Amino acid sequence: MKMSEGVEWTAHACALLAALPPGVGLPANALAEFHDLAPAYMAKHMQALARAGVVESVRGAGGGYRLAKKPQEVTLWDIYEAIEGQEPAFRCSEIRQQGPCTGNGDFRRPCEINAVFGRAEAAWKAELRSVTLAEIVAEVGRKATPVKRAQLTEWLGSKLG
Amino acid sequence: MKMSEGVEWTAHACALLAALPPGVGLPANALAEFHDLAPAYMAKHMQALARAGVVESVRGAGGGYRLAKKPQEVTLWDIYEAIEGQEPAFRCSEIRQQGPCTGNGDFRRPCEINAVFGRAEAAWKAELRSVTLAEIVAEVGRKATPVKRAQLTEWLGSKLG
Repeated sequence: MKMSEGVEWTAHACALLAALPPGVGLPANALAEFHDLAPAYMAKHMQALARAGVVESVRGAGGGYRLAKKPQEVTLWDIYEAIEGQEPAFRCSEIRQQGPCTGNGDFRRPCEINAVFGRAEAAWKAELRSVTLAEIVAEVGRKATPVKRAQLTEWLGSKLG
Repeated sequence: MKMSEGVEWTAHACALLAALPPGVGLPANALAEFHDLAPAYMAKHMQALARAGVVESVRGAGGGYRLAKKPQEVTLWDIYEAIEGQEPAFRCSEIRQQGPCTGNGDFRRPCEINAVFGRAEAAWKAELRSVTLAEIVAEVGRKATPVKRAQLTEWLGSKLG
């Protein structure tokens, strides 16, 4: 079972957007360039984020994508969900209702196996919902070296004009 | 992101095996028939469970698969892992080390985004590891109707001879 690379790509892209001054955006091309990723795929993933309301597109000079909410209001779950959707990874097809031993067909109580996988996914989701972009950016900032800060300032300057 | 149907299939198959008297097994064909599933795919999934040491194959008359451990020693995580493997769903490709702003290349501290996804998967795994086949069987047994119990006894009788 493997998550789309788009989750990793857009999580990093949103962390970059969250570090920009409020209201400032970057085009998908620049977001791809920042981590040397394929621009076409990054554009597709950013469109998914825009459809989900995590980012918004700003037209015109200095346009691009910016966060549609404050960094402290966007969690890693929001980004995951924008790329992968809301369907659970474990999809119960109610096989207990098939075959020669299905009793008299009373299946009102949930399938126990599905219930456990559901609890596991709820715990996973709760972890992803507990961390916001603001916290990611603060943590990345604490780790950043002076060289990296200087590179970022120069690169952003070249993109924001 | 979608889990293999094999996890659902084998979780139900193992719950059935866990309900049998100790040492008794069922062939993959019977495990497929019990929930009206494709025998070839069920055989493939049961082979994966055997490779992982969750079940073992017994040859000869009355042969088939049986649990390789006690029902209270097999968790839903063991079954998941046998089918899907140990790789995390979120696979960090360290894109922070790519692009124009990688600083002076000190990446000893883990990527914060990967760390959060790792904690989420740990929480998910912990839930799956907390429930054993013995508990699943006990819960399913509590829900079983008299009609279902009678069907199961008759069906098992026809399979076990």
